[in-house]
Amino acid sequence: MRISELSAESGVALPTVKYYLREGLLHPGEQRSATRADYDDTHLRRLRLIRALLEVGKLPVASIKKIIEAVDDESLPVHTMLGTAHYALAPEVAPAEPGDELEAARAEVDRVVAGHGWQVLPDAPPRAELAEILLRMRSLGMTPDLAPYAEAADRLVREVEMATIPFDGPRDAAVEALVLGTVLYGKAFDALRRLAQESESARRLAR
Amino acid sequence: MRISELSAESGVALPTVKYYLREGLLHPGEQRSATRADYDDTHLRRLRLIRALLEVGKLPVASIKKIIEAVDDESLPVHTMLGTAHYALAPEVAPAEPGDELEAARAEVDRVVAGHGWQVLPDAPPRAELAEILLRMRSLGMTPDLAPYAEAADRLVREVEMATIPFDGPRDAAVEALVLGTVLYGKAFDALRRLAQESESARRLAR
Repeated sequence: MRISELSAESGVALPTVKYYLREGLLHPGEQRSATRADYDDTHLRRLRLIRALLEVGKLPVASIKKIIEAVDDESLPVHTMLGTAHYALAPEVAPAEPGDELEAARAEVDRVVAGHGWQVLPDAPPRAELAEILLRMRSLGMTPDLAPYAEAADRLVREVEMATIPFDGPRDAAVEALVLGTVLYGKAFDALRRLAQESESARRLAR
Repeated sequence: MRISELSAESGVALPTVKYYLREGLLHPGEQRSATRADYDDTHLRRLRLIRALLEVGKLPVASIKKIIEAVDDESLPVHTMLGTAHYALAPEVAPAEPGDELEAARAEVDRVVAGHGWQVLPDAPPRAELAEILLRMRSLGMTPDLAPYAEAADRLVREVEMATIPFDGPRDAAVEALVLGTVLYGKAFDALRRLAQESESARRLAR
């Protein structure tokens, strides 16, 4: 299809499509003549991924470029490619005060990870996030217990979430599914949890 | 205790304590003389709540004032008071395009709520959030299924979360527990879910 059709088909404005081409986020079409290039489904799929990373992942173009590079580098294992996108989604955490509290929090995170037999890299961003959250809870006088949350997350991810990722499909489709699922179902769970809290609060107080 | 001791005990800077007093967020101490007032545990508890709403809930002072008013209005049922804080924590959602898609999304949210027998008000903010998220998912070509997420949220909230709210304790302590638990365990679950995803991705791709 022509670039104008690619724009219409994808719903991405023509100047934006041209910008992605210039930035190297979108691979060039097949040059048919000096004035015409042909685009296909791989371009449509790539535009879907860029839109997902930009609009849903809220990632800066620089991060998106890194992810696209990982998608295009066929020598990278799929898991590593997915990890590049996954880690880019992690919220910024201010580095915690080094000290015994931080060490204890890190050890607690390690116990949770080991307890579920999770295979995650030592520098996986959610480890530091969790340690940070545990410190925060303690500084506010809470006595945190991650166990039931880890249990719920483990079940949800194993039984439902990762089954929806097309690991055997095109690389960019897998990344898109991971990013959309992680961000949007994360927001959905948060809203569902608040609905359940309102209901349970009503139920308990009605007694 | 004197205001200087209240500041030291609570870890809230003296000028900030005085600001909360002026704003009416913190109730006055007992006037002992022209130059001295006495403060007690109720002031410490109130400062903890303000800190929770401000630092963890990231709420503007105007919202905090509304919540404090609800805490102080003993004529308000505890559930209504908690709801005031709970609704204030809901993220802003841009109102969705009216139309058949929105109606369908709202109906789907109603089905989830009814399916779990949740008692939530028709205007509970998470309803609109969820409808918005469902529309978003569809516009991105996803076929959303909230069921397993609703199930996980329901179990977590009924079996664990609301059991930690001191409904029979002081009103501000209950609000503080709800706000801290909702926000911080929400972040914790999100990080735990990403750890489980990384692990499950490794496991499936190792096959």
